[in-house]
Amino acid sequence: MTKARFDVDPWTVSISDVRPESLAHEESVFGLSNGHLGWRGNLDEGDPRGVAGSYLNGVFEEHPMPYAEDAYGYPEVGQSVINVQNGQIIRMLVDDEPFDIETGELSSHDRRLDLRDGTLHRSFEWTSPTGRRVRVESTRVVSLSRRAIAAVRYSVEAVEHAVDITVISELLANEPVPVEHDDPRVQDLLTRPLVTVETDAVGSRATLLHRTRRSGLAVATTMDHEVDAPGYRLVTEAEDDGARTTIRARLDPGERLVIVKYVGHDFEESRASATVRARAETAVTAAMADGWDRLLAEQREVLDDYWRCADVIVEGEPRLQQAVRYALFQVFQSAARAELRSVPGKGLTGAGYEGHTFWDFEAFVLPVLTSTAPDAARQALLWRHSTLPHARDRAAQLHLAGAAFAWRTIDGRESSGYWPASTAAFHINADIAAAVLHYVRATGDVEFEREYGLEILVETARLWVSLGRRDADGTFHIDGVTGPDEYSAIANDNVFTNLMAQLNLRAAADAARRHPERCEDLGVGADEIDEWTATAAAMHIPFDADLGIHPQSAGYTQLERWDFDATGIDQYLLHDHFPYFDLYRKQVLKQADLVLAMHFAHEAFTPEQKIRNFEYYEALTVRDSSLSAAPQAVIAAEVHQLELAYDYLAEVATIDLDDAHGNTHEGLHVAALAGVWTVIVAGFGGMRDTADGLRFAPRLPPRLTRLGFGIRVHGETLRLDVSASETTYRYSGDEPLKLLHFDQAITVGTDEVTAQTPSPPVPRSRPQQPRHRAPRSAFETDGS
Amino acid sequence: MTKARFDVDPWTVSISDVRPESLAHEESVFGLSNGHLGWRGNLDEGDPRGVAGSYLNGVFEEHPMPYAEDAYGYPEVGQSVINVQNGQIIRMLVDDEPFDIETGELSSHDRRLDLRDGTLHRSFEWTSPTGRRVRVESTRVVSLSRRAIAAVRYSVEAVEHAVDITVISELLANEPVPVEHDDPRVQDLLTRPLVTVETDAVGSRATLLHRTRRSGLAVATTMDHEVDAPGYRLVTEAEDDGARTTIRARLDPGERLVIVKYVGHDFEESRASATVRARAETAVTAAMADGWDRLLAEQREVLDDYWRCADVIVEGEPRLQQAVRYALFQVFQSAARAELRSVPGKGLTGAGYEGHTFWDFEAFVLPVLTSTAPDAARQALLWRHSTLPHARDRAAQLHLAGAAFAWRTIDGRESSGYWPASTAAFHINADIAAAVLHYVRATGDVEFEREYGLEILVETARLWVSLGRRDADGTFHIDGVTGPDEYSAIANDNVFTNLMAQLNLRAAADAARRHPERCEDLGVGADEIDEWTATAAAMHIPFDADLGIHPQSAGYTQLERWDFDATGIDQYLLHDHFPYFDLYRKQVLKQADLVLAMHFAHEAFTPEQKIRNFEYYEALTVRDSSLSAAPQAVIAAEVHQLELAYDYLAEVATIDLDDAHGNTHEGLHVAALAGVWTVIVAGFGGMRDTADGLRFAPRLPPRLTRLGFGIRVHGETLRLDVSASETTYRYSGDEPLKLLHFDQAITVGTDEVTAQTPSPPVPRSRPQQPRHRAPRSAFETDGS
Repeated sequence: MTKARFDVDPWTVSISDVRPESLAHEESVFGLSNGHLGWRGNLDEGDPRGVAGSYLNGVFEEHPMPYAEDAYGYPEVGQSVINVQNGQIIRMLVDDEPFDIETGELSSHDRRLDLRDGTLHRSFEWTSPTGRRVRVESTRVVSLSRRAIAAVRYSVEAVEHAVDITVISELLANEPVPVEHDDPRVQDLLTRPLVTVETDAVGSRATLLHRTRRSGLAVATTMDHEVDAPGYRLVTEAEDDGARTTIRARLDPGERLVIVKYVGHDFEESRASATVRARAETAVTAAMADGWDRLLAEQREVLDDYWRCADVIVEGEPRLQQAVRYALFQVFQSAARAELRSVPGKGLTGAGYEGHTFWDFEAFVLPVLTSTAPDAARQALLWRHSTLPHARDRAAQLHLAGAAFAWRTIDGRESSGYWPASTAAFHINADIAAAVLHYVRATGDVEFEREYGLEILVETARLWVSLGRRDADGTFHIDGVTGPDEYSAIANDNVFTNLMAQLNLRAAADAARRHPERCEDLGVGADEIDEWTATAAAMHIPFDADLGIHPQSAGYTQLERWDFDATGIDQYLLHDHFPYFDLYRKQVLKQADLVLAMHFAHEAFTPEQKIRNFEYYEALTVRDSSLSAAPQAVIAAEVHQLELAYDYLAEVATIDLDDAHGNTHEGLHVAALAGVWTVIVAGFGGMRDTADGLRFAPRLPPRLTRLGFGIRVHGETLRLDVSASETTYRYSGDEPLKLLHFDQAITVGTDEVTAQTPSPPVPRSRPQQPRHRAPRSAFETDGS
Repeated sequence: MTKARFDVDPWTVSISDVRPESLAHEESVFGLSNGHLGWRGNLDEGDPRGVAGSYLNGVFEEHPMPYAEDAYGYPEVGQSVINVQNGQIIRMLVDDEPFDIETGELSSHDRRLDLRDGTLHRSFEWTSPTGRRVRVESTRVVSLSRRAIAAVRYSVEAVEHAVDITVISELLANEPVPVEHDDPRVQDLLTRPLVTVETDAVGSRATLLHRTRRSGLAVATTMDHEVDAPGYRLVTEAEDDGARTTIRARLDPGERLVIVKYVGHDFEESRASATVRARAETAVTAAMADGWDRLLAEQREVLDDYWRCADVIVEGEPRLQQAVRYALFQVFQSAARAELRSVPGKGLTGAGYEGHTFWDFEAFVLPVLTSTAPDAARQALLWRHSTLPHARDRAAQLHLAGAAFAWRTIDGRESSGYWPASTAAFHINADIAAAVLHYVRATGDVEFEREYGLEILVETARLWVSLGRRDADGTFHIDGVTGPDEYSAIANDNVFTNLMAQLNLRAAADAARRHPERCEDLGVGADEIDEWTATAAAMHIPFDADLGIHPQSAGYTQLERWDFDATGIDQYLLHDHFPYFDLYRKQVLKQADLVLAMHFAHEAFTPEQKIRNFEYYEALTVRDSSLSAAPQAVIAAEVHQLELAYDYLAEVATIDLDDAHGNTHEGLHVAALAGVWTVIVAGFGGMRDTADGLRFAPRLPPRLTRLGFGIRVHGETLRLDVSASETTYRYSGDEPLKLLHFDQAITVGTDEVTAQTPSPPVPRSRPQQPRHRAPRSAFETDGS
């Protein structure tokens, strides 16, 4: 692990150099979003840049899906996120010399993301090629309180000499983006995705209204400006793909030109809409009326409220303290105001994975939101619920009952192009059902369960019944499916899938029994509920008695073992160097599968099985997926491999800050970032969700002296403060909360409760990973 | 089964109506080819037409292969057969009224394919819209003796009135063909695939020289004309994409205009070549010098020689007599002069499957050629040998030893776009090895074995050793592969694959021991030979002892059975209505797999196993592949289900003549046509190839009174004449031939030998097929 890229600080992420080749990474790290609107951290002036990025959640273009050999049930229409009109751009000229970080002399340049303020600051001092010096500060906010609004305060101060300052504030559509598709049909549609409908410029305000060519969306962006400067002139112009407000002023030394740019984005699922334009303009008008200070105050208020519960305290490793807050900030940003839209794998920080959402949102991100921002979790589940018509259609196409949710999608329609790792990965349906179950347990949101959650549970339960089959002995099997591990596919009785399906069936039966009045609407009778219960009970969970472990899927332990010793360090990632054919037929895991099952379906395994399973799969897991380290850490912690868990945590925590996978420029790994919290809370905190309440088993890894974290439980905050020897529980609710501390039942009421940490078991030796694939000790070279 | 489309005759296939909507089918049926050059049976005048088709074996265009989600090892370049310059076209005008079957009055129109002459005849009498009547005859030949040459004799006779006759004979490049690709990159390359290099017109001769845009081929076509008519005038012109010779004459009633058009085609793997043009012109010059009658005589000579051995006599069903000769004619045509080029799945009769060759050439077609046209078989194996460099590259890409031959290709490079049904179908390598083994056994061609065959056997044996693995008990397994059945994929220990690999390993070891001097060149030592033998001996062949049958692959009999009763007749073909996901995980077969293994590896099964296996898989096989009925028939015959075998034979025999699959317009099903011979010879004749020679077990199905067929054995002809009670064997060789008649050893010397048919066993009930998928009794409604 190399030195940290960013300055280590508990509440900020900052950097004081700027190089064109690093911008793409930093733009993702400095991405601001509210879940509805996302701006990558592009420099104000737009150039140089890594990847321009301004996204509205739900704005995408459709395109044909190409297949060398087509077949029944293959999705025909793909979806790709596109840039909306870019409202970030503020260019500056000093005596008509355009500012650029690569010309003139940049005597300082600092960028700082503030995790409490929710703002991105930038300050620099620049001397133009002709020797004129200015001091610039900009502050950018993507509002968490007003979902359509982003704003920038941009201030230029003349230093030493009087100068003519020109600031050009722009909206820009159809900017060039990196070529991603080698299919020219797709490339055509995505290169200039926006068609101009109308543009408008009045005073300091301009609006661009565009439409997408195939997906039928109307997309509007408005900007307006407050200007404070001596004797400035201002003019606004608009043309088809751009609008600009030009502000000129002459500044004496010490004088400033200050501009606040308000940008409002909105869209609508209709090609030509007057209302979408009106909404963007109204949002800007309102924001401007309330003003910049109010925007900042609202932002701080939302985040203060968030951190009050969600904050995690780490003592013993400053980089981890920073990383966990950064991770939580980005997880929150990705979903806070998504409101009936999907949360993409990269959030709104990049166009990676085409802006699609995957199972890891429900499996990795939603548990964090449920525990820290339950309103956002509710909204995300409502989005899945809204896609039920598509999921029912997909199930029908596959000749299955109920609903089959999309493996990858923006709007709910299946958009995956390789069925063995998508259509066959039916576990996503149980992952969604589990997210419903955990949300309802954590919040007590009975209204949600009755009106929305139950329908998801029912339709997914129906899917499982139709997908599996009873054998002659009455045992229930689910054949030919793909579990979480993408180096395996199309296997029978995947343990993760079967356990999650079992959980899904039981959750559906329980919820149905709680809401008999809704069952009638959904056509659920007592027989069907009994069938779910019986199917769950009959579920086959393969076990290899010889090895004393669970095979990932039936027969898995009989497969040939991957030849790790013959695999060079330069042959990772394996899928870049070996065909699926060979990966699938051998024992080698891209990511935790059975190990993840031991977290999500923790009650299905004995402690001894967890130890044996973990050791077995550690030796086979190459962690070529960013989704792997966190689940490995959670179970490592459970089986008392605390140092190993800590090494995995360090790896996950630095994934984006240090660009550990080399692809952060495509956007943040939101699910991996969520994993940072999960390792702390479910790993070192030992939190498990059961029908009878929460259980904790907090143990610190040797390098940490203290951990503190908070969980929302039924709308109140449960906070744990963990030291090596004891844990203190505090709960903000009026009703006392019953929970388990290890095997000890405790009740946390108005007074805090402190409980001792039991002695650890006799340590076992550290499990071995495949050659070249042991986790690095992430913080070693830069410990505080 | 409906009435036969074509007139039933033992040696011709003819039809006396002509309708635009039927042309596409008839063009394939009337396709003429010599394996190097193929002309679909388009009408002389080119319009109307179903699909224009003029193919040179090896002339194709390359194009990008599109993938919605790309991965390691996916082929990047696809290949598609394209039309070369069309030399078929002869348009006629009567008093300047263009002849067209859809205008004027066609009082007769007959087309006749003659299977002994190797010619396509056409005659019609037409009255123009202005009342002028002509009688036209055309005869078309694609020369089996001169691979570059096709020719047409076109004769027009004035009836009743004097008329001005204009005949326009053309060469035409880049004719419109049906849109096949929805990827516009591919479509672009294939829409106008030929770029003009040069054109030339002198006297009655014209030449077009084109090149392909990406694949880098130079393609030349020359035409020249002999004309016989009173006072005719002739002019020839050429432009970029066409050339035409216009011949005008005034004919009194009873006078004729007779034109013989000679067309020479050639190509070369070089973009601009003078020699390719010279070769096309020289071929025409030579053909013209020898003349039309000589061309016809040569054609008849080649075919007489072919039929002398190959002819099959059927008594009892005239439609079958015609069909088997038609099938043999087309199989012969597809490969006769292919000479170091692949033989496409459709021969040169259509652009279906993009002109690719597949495993079924070696598995289905080559055995027929080996027994009837061994020189063509040798050439085809030499082609595979020539692709060894590509096959070694592919093996290396897959991290395997030896050679992995292309699943689908024109020039030897892998061009398949769906790996579970291509890359994973490694059995093609053993199918090729088996074809080598059978060719050498049948011909005694030791020089071929030493110089070429051994290298194929060695490289494929190496592949198997690296592809499989030994388990702890030393048993050899081949995991994660796909057998012949395309409704299953990625399974362990596919019995067909393992048995064929075993045969491959043994054949390699035997051949290597026979040619120690070549082993040194190939780096084969005694240890490696021993390893092949040991690996073959250790090969795992799964067997389900409970059911007493072989599972298609390990665990197959434990899979869920397809719900045939719930599957409607309109849901076939299943792959058009169900996802691979569901087909793969259930017991349902598209085509014979284990049943095919019982033919190709017949010594690995006891008679009792054959009966039980056949009955088991009959109930699961839906025959959605044209490759299925013939192997089912062969084993049906072996297990004494002669009526069932006959029904399958009827189905195969009429596949193209009756357009039974509705896709004959894309080209003939050459492997299925080969299956007609295979059912007669290996099914009713019971022929099996063993290390100790041939075995026969001839039994007639109840509807036939006699069968006769011939086999090339070591360059000589063995003919069988089978009646219900006995079989007479005749052999043309000087050395007596030892063989088995049932279990009776007989020796056929200069005198014929007649042997009795043993009494049949007690009949078992007819096996059941899935609902809606029993074979139709093909000849029922049209028995003679």
